[in-house]
Amino acid sequence: MDENSLTADPSTWNGSNFVSVKQLTPEGLQLLFSVAKDMKALVRSEGGDERLKHRVLANVFYEASTRTSCSFQAAMLRLGGKVVCVNESSSSVKKGETLGDTIRCLECYADVTVLRHPVKGSAAEAASATQKPVLNAGDGVGEHPSQALLDTFTIEDEFSSTGGLQNKIVVLLGDLKHGRTVHSLAKLIARSGISGVTLRYCSPDILRMPEDVKEEVAKYGLQQEEFTNLKAALNGADCLYVTRVQKERFASEADYEAVKSIYIVDKEVMKAAPEKCIILHPLPRVGEIKEEVDSDPRAAYFRQMENGMFVRMALLALVLGKSGK
Amino acid sequence: MDENSLTADPSTWNGSNFVSVKQLTPEGLQLLFSVAKDMKALVRSEGGDERLKHRVLANVFYEASTRTSCSFQAAMLRLGGKVVCVNESSSSVKKGETLGDTIRCLECYADVTVLRHPVKGSAAEAASATQKPVLNAGDGVGEHPSQALLDTFTIEDEFSSTGGLQNKIVVLLGDLKHGRTVHSLAKLIARSGISGVTLRYCSPDILRMPEDVKEEVAKYGLQQEEFTNLKAALNGADCLYVTRVQKERFASEADYEAVKSIYIVDKEVMKAAPEKCIILHPLPRVGEIKEEVDSDPRAAYFRQMENGMFVRMALLALVLGKSGK
Amino acid sequence: MDENSLTADPSTWNGSNFVSVKQLTPEGLQLLFSVAKDMKALVRSEGGDERLKHRVLANVFYEASTRTSCSFQAAMLRLGGKVVCVNESSSSVKKGETLGDTIRCLECYADVTVLRHPVKGSAAEAASATQKPVLNAGDGVGEHPSQALLDTFTIEDEFSSTGGLQNKIVVLLGDLKHGRTVHSLAKLIARSGISGVTLRYCSPDILRMPEDVKEEVAKYGLQQEEFTNLKAALNGADCLYVTRVQKERFASEADYEAVKSIYIVDKEVMKAAPEKCIILHPLPRVGEIKEEVDSDPRAAYFRQMENGMFVRMALLALVLGKSGK
Repeated sequence: MDENSLTADPSTWNGSNFVSVKQLTPEGLQLLFSVAKDMKALVRSEGGDERLKHRVLANVFYEASTRTSCSFQAAMLRLGGKVVCVNESSSSVKKGETLGDTIRCLECYADVTVLRHPVKGSAAEAASATQKPVLNAGDGVGEHPSQALLDTFTIEDEFSSTGGLQNKIVVLLGDLKHGRTVHSLAKLIARSGISGVTLRYCSPDILRMPEDVKEEVAKYGLQQEEFTNLKAALNGADCLYVTRVQKERFASEADYEAVKSIYIVDKEVMKAAPEKCIILHPLPRVGEIKEEVDSDPRAAYFRQMENGMFVRMALLALVLGKSGK
Repeated sequence: MDENSLTADPSTWNGSNFVSVKQLTPEGLQLLFSVAKDMKALVRSEGGDERLKHRVLANVFYEASTRTSCSFQAAMLRLGGKVVCVNESSSSVKKGETLGDTIRCLECYADVTVLRHPVKGSAAEAASATQKPVLNAGDGVGEHPSQALLDTFTIEDEFSSTGGLQNKIVVLLGDLKHGRTVHSLAKLIARSGISGVTLRYCSPDILRMPEDVKEEVAKYGLQQEEFTNLKAALNGADCLYVTRVQKERFASEADYEAVKSIYIVDKEVMKAAPEKCIILHPLPRVGEIKEEVDSDPRAAYFRQMENGMFVRMALLALVLGKSGK
Repeated sequence: MDENSLTADPSTWNGSNFVSVKQLTPEGLQLLFSVAKDMKALVRSEGGDERLKHRVLANVFYEASTRTSCSFQAAMLRLGGKVVCVNESSSSVKKGETLGDTIRCLECYADVTVLRHPVKGSAAEAASATQKPVLNAGDGVGEHPSQALLDTFTIEDEFSSTGGLQNKIVVLLGDLKHGRTVHSLAKLIARSGISGVTLRYCSPDILRMPEDVKEEVAKYGLQQEEFTNLKAALNGADCLYVTRVQKERFASEADYEAVKSIYIVDKEVMKAAPEKCIILHPLPRVGEIKEEVDSDPRAAYFRQMENGMFVRMALLALVLGKSGK
């Protein structure tokens, strides 16, 4: 690993890039979550503070991702920082400049860069070109580490009075074959050092969790179970993480129709779900969770969205040496 | 009316949506104008203040409207708030997410949302999805309430030493058939509770003020008069509100040519206008007021533009509970 | 010259437009550089300050120029100011509004406007329409004055311990026929009042510095020399300013291939360059300086980029009357 490890010692974060969840030690992850919890309390009480006064974020998006962009912007602004947005379609980088040069130039104006790029490895490439911190906001089929962090933080936070993620049963639902989100989440939970977690994979047969992900999870000793039936998977579950099953993945319309309704979360499914089972979703949703579920207190996906900002506030504060820890 | 009334009591504004001028009681309108006047004084003396420190505005525009967008942004920034801009063409919302979900997500990061959307009713739809205030910045053929407010505020302000809008004669000029702006202005003046106002409608015959608008205005007891001749309409007038007559509205080029020059405000028209008659225009103009008029002290359209920011500062301060009242 | 002169007296800057380097007296240039130096020290120590609190910049770009836009934005933000960005393709100004009207409207919300526009003369046109300062960020084949300023400032700053630009030999390399950047730089150095500078023009024969530029430079008494051989031009040089030689300028591919490699700066060229000879480039580069040169301490182009922000901070502070001088 070229990138340095991010540990419980805040000085390992100060000035560091954050490109991959692999940089995080279990204790480093807990430090991040602890700072994110502080951020949540700060936003609830004061809306923000001025700790990043006179610091500038270059928020560089080579592909559109409104939520992630807004979340990082709001995170910086709520800490008193400033934001300069650069929205380029990758094609517009036709002048022939390298990504490294672009990032080095922006670094002349800014103190930290958030980068979203369609090509895997771009975040590491950008990070190696600069002296100042680069945060990976998604690099194609590579990683989208702040997403996995906010997902995991949400489970920890929702169960904060009952031991957090420890000993919980988490169901991952939907297209587990292609979903970057669920792969990252499974891996992050596995390497989190949090004990006793069971991962249940619930998907149509043709969209099962890939072997390589299961093998990596297995290394860390987690129990893994596979299901095609949602209600069976929900038995005793603490968390249901929903993702979309896309029609394009199926050989025929008939194949798709045969499975799709099984994976839609509605009031009926909520009746079958345990009393404390929270529902997560990376959003946007397109019908896979019905709006009738929104008012259920177990529907945690908008709280999850908000946690994204707290986690990103924590990341920015840590790499700029202002976590208060 | 689903939306709550906005009255002279600032607590009725705090946390409220502002979707339609119909929410405003006459006393609520006067509260808003009073706060807008404070904002004008603040900007003149200090440029702004910090009352919205740590508050974040999501400025969401589904169609381009540079002026309105900039005006709301500057309003938020001058009160010490932060802004996250979301500029989507409506077509880009193709991922299939509902407007309600989009707004609920943005609300996770922001404290207030300004929404511009091409579809009538969007602002109300967005407002019903969220807990935090939504301000309507124009929803298609629906309303553009901050425009009508700034127009009315400008008349009040320009005549502040002679009783404001009370007992004034206001001429609305141009395409009165299709103009959302003049419809809204006529209705807002009517329901403002300000007494003795006369509305004069001056337009080509085929572009007269619609009956339904005249009927609504009549309910409030205002005197209404119709003209095709501008100079006649200007006799004794206090305010001339100019809008464009578009060529596309006419059956033939000849029909258009026959009327267009009658409705162009130039030095000649200004000679005919009373000494204290102010000229307003929602801008942009395309020839309907000649540049030679700009240096006339009665040309109030750039002051009107500036008032737009003061009115929007007042709206933001009121719905975020920081009006100082 | 319609625009007022900008001198050593800060009051000549306060509220003024900055459209052309021709506005600068030699003493005015030194004032600007002195403030830019202060800005560099400020950013190094504190990141910024709050002197432009409650001031709003309208950053108006009618053509894309990410670096210049970001540089001005960061400059304003680091002085505690706020920024509203307007990015219009010139074609979108199809509603028919004049540039003057657009700028006057934005001025209603903002305290200062930065304008980038593809048409020569636009900055002066905008400036004449408004009461508040307009800064020219490039108007087509007209000027891009902040670029010439940051180039000159960089030479002054890099040689601050050995008399700055005075008595230095500056080599301008590449396409000297078409490059706005090198024309502006030559003219600014000439009129800077800094004595003893030699300008060396090194280019393919068909891309030589135009006569009119040489004539203007000559008026100020500078020594000018022409070269086609880079190594000869570097003999005793203090600064090498690199620009691109574009293939499109040549009659045939063969003509291009014959000259291109001569003008590429690599390790070999750096060996031939004097020990203290700094390398500048307006960026972006597309191969004309190899990445292997970046780690050479004489490679000053990223420091030059950073100086762009300091110079723009100085411009904003001066025209808003907050230079501290």
